[in-house]
Formats: sequence, structure tokens, C-alpha cells
Amino acid sequence: MPISVDPGISKMELALAARNHGMPLEALTYDVTPAGLHYLLIHYDIPQVAVGSWTLTVDGAISRPLALTMEDIKSLPQVTERVTMECAGNGRARLDPRPIGQPWLDEAVGTAEWTGVRLVEVLMAAGLEDGAIEVLFSGMDRGVEGGYEQPYERSLAMGDASRPEVILAHSMNGQPLLPQHGFPLRLIVPGWYGMTSVKWLHRITVLTEAFQGYQQSHSYRIRTQEEEPGEPVSRILPRSLMIPPGVPGYPDRERFVSAGEVTIRGRAWSGFGPINRVEVSVGDGGSWIDANVEPATHHYAWQSWHHIWNAAVGSYVLSSRATDATGLVQPLDPVWNLGGYLVNATQSVTVTVTDRSAASAR
Amino acid sequence: MPISVDPGISKMELALAARNHGMPLEALTYDVTPAGLHYLLIHYDIPQVAVGSWTLTVDGAISRPLALTMEDIKSLPQVTERVTMECAGNGRARLDPRPIGQPWLDEAVGTAEWTGVRLVEVLMAAGLEDGAIEVLFSGMDRGVEGGYEQPYERSLAMGDASRPEVILAHSMNGQPLLPQHGFPLRLIVPGWYGMTSVKWLHRITVLTEAFQGYQQSHSYRIRTQEEEPGEPVSRILPRSLMIPPGVPGYPDRERFVSAGEVTIRGRAWSGFGPINRVEVSVGDGGSWIDANVEPATHHYAWQSWHHIWNAAVGSYVLSSRATDATGLVQPLDPVWNLGGYLVNATQSVTVTVTDRSAASAR
Repeated sequence: MPISVDPGISKMELALAARNHGMPLEALTYDVTPAGLHYLLIHYDIPQVAVGSWTLTVDGAISRPLALTMEDIKSLPQVTERVTMECAGNGRARLDPRPIGQPWLDEAVGTAEWTGVRLVEVLMAAGLEDGAIEVLFSGMDRGVEGGYEQPYERSLAMGDASRPEVILAHSMNGQPLLPQHGFPLRLIVPGWYGMTSVKWLHRITVLTEAFQGYQQSHSYRIRTQEEEPGEPVSRILPRSLMIPPGVPGYPDRERFVSAGEVTIRGRAWSGFGPINRVEVSVGDGGSWIDANVEPATHHYAWQSWHHIWNAAVGSYVLSSRATDATGLVQPLDPVWNLGGYLVNATQSVTVTVTDRSAASAR
Repeated sequence: MPISVDPGISKMELALAARNHGMPLEALTYDVTPAGLHYLLIHYDIPQVAVGSWTLTVDGAISRPLALTMEDIKSLPQVTERVTMECAGNGRARLDPRPIGQPWLDEAVGTAEWTGVRLVEVLMAAGLEDGAIEVLFSGMDRGVEGGYEQPYERSLAMGDASRPEVILAHSMNGQPLLPQHGFPLRLIVPGWYGMTSVKWLHRITVLTEAFQGYQQSHSYRIRTQEEEPGEPVSRILPRSLMIPPGVPGYPDRERFVSAGEVTIRGRAWSGFGPINRVEVSVGDGGSWIDANVEPATHHYAWQSWHHIWNAAVGSYVLSSRATDATGLVQPLDPVWNLGGYLVNATQSVTVTVTDRSAASAR
């Protein structure tokens, strides 16, 4: 099905939102996101895999084809990477017209500790042949997209695939992968949007030509018309998010805060380098104040920031804006594209500040 | 805020759907739902609780006020119950006009094994005084609803609170509760919709008058106009769901199946008693065929069913319909009410059956 645009939130989009989910923003408080709170975006169905009958096939332009069991994979040197992962479509539902797809607002993110083996070790064990230029990753999940049935598949150029932080992970936060996160094995590409980190991995194929599959040549490309080839989505643009302060309303989830000193806390991240600036606005005419940003403790995980706000009675729209070490800055307004990718515009949090005695009398 | 009706899916409803989530229907394959796949409906924010400084207060019309630590609770006799839990609002988004609230389609369900202490043991330890008629459960989650700030609170009549299957649970599937499921302690009322099973429990108060709080006297009542007092929601009406067969499309998630024998599998449950009949329709003029229903293995958990369908090339709408031991049957069409509760109408799954050679040529 070609990507199309539609101004109203449809039952089809709602069906996606009912099964996939973001990270509730109060979970920004955790350095590592607890099980079940990390965002999920699953194109097809979650496969149920019996690890005893599963193997990882490594084939294509290699000298030693491999069929690795989980035992084989765990016998190789193990590494753990703390990684903030984000969906390339995070923010999509803020575009107008809204591209059809999972209708994310701000929360398609999470941070986990992934344990497994470096991809480059497996590639070296297989022995790359001359002309090897890409590595294709095939998941066990299948569906009909763009008019034909396919497994979920994505490739990486050899230079990206060979980076030491790219891992084949069997564990998340010290536990075997949950079914919905790719059990028994998935790719993890730190710093890149989540579409690259193929789940339910069962085949790695070394290619001598560029992969032209649907998820590579059609989806996850930045373009404004169907006819354009577009630029591929890769690394994560900078984003900051705050823990919405105070207490929420239900069902509107707008915020209520008592007047006085309020510490606004959040996280910020970029796939291009560390965050070196987060600014906060309390909606008083567009002025921005520098927040305190903690230094990066892990190369590919989010950083903490906070700002003390002296909140007076009134109505506010709070925002934060991150800048990374390469100078990339979050835009204030979403930038439209056909697929609804890379929408890293600043978050807006509507807050009503009341004095405590009035609040308790509400 | 009063409940109102609105025909279009709003950004407010989308914001609820982005943080809460249903159980992806392929997870019906698991007897016990894996972590992170069980449905979640959270009115306010997920509290972050340090169990070391947490106690459960038991007060009100009792002779021995208690302040129980987690150690105290774990020193009492422990029980485990396998329970299918469902949101009272499951199916809400299928109503027209659609009540404002979490816009569930079919999947607000999950089954877990909950471990803890029987509530009745704690009540006996506290010693009920004369005139005790209800038990109030207060969570640590707070928000503004119906115009005032409140903790999430619900009560049970003493007869319901004293049932042996009602437990104070500290573990889910053998692990400490995840933050989003009520860590460190929650109520579990098997057979009832989820609104009763208060999470992040920190106070139990025995009452001599009926509780009149918002979640009891306003929300979770069946009525067609604001002015009616309405009947309270309690036990789960029968529902059956099937694992959508074949492979999904994306983003539409309609199903593609190869012609031939297809085993349709699903689960069915009721809070009123065991399921003794599930019928399946393949949309051929409303005829219903009995599926094979497995006997209940746990009093409060779903039962498996399956039906072998000889699928010929064509387009179909598959449905299933459960009947419980008390004679309650799922309706074919949703029954409207202002809050969008108890919508247990039959599921519809749209399927295209192709012959395999045509499918691979798509």
C-alpha cells in the first residue's frame, strides 16, 4: 500500500496505537527503562519462537557459512551496551497533513542494556569475500506491505555493520529478550532509529549489491512525493523530553502544579554525539533558559537535565530544546515529509499553576 | 470533567492510546501473558515507589490499626491465582457516538499469575468492628478528575472483599510487580473488571458507610445520561477473541491466509463462570458453528478454543461468540452507554484467502 495522507485519526491508526505503545513520560525518571515501558513498534505479528529449534544462518558472500545456535552465540565474547532507542516515526501525529502510520506523539523512546556478541566478530568468523558491500538482516516476522508478502528485512552498509557497538543481542536489562523485543536474538545499532535494529533475527546475508527491499528502498526515506527516491533515515536527531510536572488530569492529561519552586527534569539524546545544551521555555514570549545538563555516562544513552522553575499562579506551555555536540538543534515546529520521519520538534506541556490552598478546595 | 461524546478520534484520546496499550492479539497464544504484553490502563501517572520506605496502612472501623511492611506481608501465608483481567472500557471505541476515554478496540485483556496474601487474612488480623460494611482501597497515584484532585480509590462491599480469591499481590508471574502494574502492592479481584484491582496500594480503610468517591459514584457506572445514578460495573461479561490467522498487512493489519485447512485458535472468559460454548462464524450469512472449547483449568483464567476452517479463496469476516455457564452470551452488536463500559460485542477479523501460488506472485 502506498503511503497516503489523511487529516483525521482513523480506526486503522487507532488499531496500531492499541497494540504498539510509547513510553509513559514519567518513566523518563529511570536511567534504564523497566520491562514493558520501552516503546514498541511492530509492523507484523510477534513470532513465538522455540529457541531449541532456532538457529542464526549466516550466508551470502562469505567463505564459511554458519548456522549458530544460541549456545554458540553465548560462547563468543559477550558485551553490554546501554542504548537509547527511538522510533523514526516519533512525532508523526504532530504533522499536518498527518502521514498514515503508527500515530506517535512524543513518547516512542526507551533506554535498555542490551547484551550479546559484536556483529563484527560473527562476520569475521564467517570470512567476508571480495565485493561484500552490505549486510542484510532478516527477521522471522512476515506481513503484506507495499503489495507483497515479505519478512521484515533491512540492510546496513559494511562500514556501519563493522562498527564495534553494533551487536546481536539475546538479553535486555539482564533478562532474555521478551517476545515483543525480538526473542531469541535481535540486531542493535546504537545511535540509529529503531527500524534498523531488526528483531526475531534468523538470517544474516552478506551482499555484493545494495539491498532493494521494501523497508530499505520505500519505507524509512525522507521525501515529499511518492516519486522521489528520497534520503534514507539513519541516525537519531537530537530530542529532549521532560517528565510532565505535577499531577495529570484524566482523560485530558494536562498538568496541575502547585505554585512555588518546581524542578523540571528530563532526558535528552542524539545519535550524532553527546548533548551539550538543553534550554527550557515556560512560554513567556519565546525566551529560552539554559537547563543543567549532566555529562554523558554512556556513549549511546540519554543524558539527564533539570531546571528549577519558580512557578507563579497561571497557565503555561513548557518546552525544552536540545543541542548536540555537532551543533544540531531541535526545531520549534515539525518539518513535514511523506512518511512522517525525523519529527524532532520540541515537546509542549500545558500546565496550570494554582496556589495549594485553592487546589485543595477544587 | 464530565464524560461527553464526540464522533472523531481526538488528539486527547490518541495521547491516552500512546501510553496505555492493549495485548497484541497474537499473544492469546500464551497461557500466561509475558511481561509487557498484558493490557495497561493508568488514569494518572505511574508512581515511583521505594519499597523500603513504603508501608500498607490498615485503618478505619477495625480494632487493631496496622502498618505492614513488605516483609510483614511476605511473612503471611502466600497464595497464587491465575487471573484473566480485562478493562471495563474494552470495546469502547466501537461505540457510535464514541464515549470519551481510552479508545479501546478489542484487546484490553491479559492473564497473569498473581502472588500475595489473601485480603481476608489482613482484615481478620485488623479485627473488624461492628458496622463495617465496605473496604476502601487507596492507591498512591493522584490526578485531577471530575474537577478535583484525588488519589485513585475504589471500594468493595464486605461480602466481595471477604471472598478467598481476593488478594493483595506483590508479584506477577513470579517477579516483583513492574512499576506500571502497581509496585510494590496491588489489589487483585478475580472475575471483576480491572478498575477494582487498585494499583500502588498504600491504604486500606474499613468503612461503616458506602464510599462516595469519583471512581465509585461517577465513573464505572452503566447509564445513558449524566443525571442517572446508574448501575456499578463489577464482574466481567463473557468475551471470546481469536488470534487473527495468517499474516497481517501493514499498516492496515487486515489478514492474508493461504487456502486450505486453517486452525483458528482463541481464548474465552467470563467473570460469572466457566465458558461452555464458543461458536465461530466465517461471515457466510450469519451461521454459527460450534468450536472445540477446552475445559477450564483455573477458575478465573481464560479457556482455549479452536476451530478448523476449510478456507476457500475469497474475502471473509471471521467472528467468535462465547456463552458462559450462567447462559450469558456475547451480543453481535455493541450496546451503547455513556461511559463505554461492558462492550463485549463479538470481534470481527477481515481475512483475504488466496491460493499460495497467487500469494507468492503478489
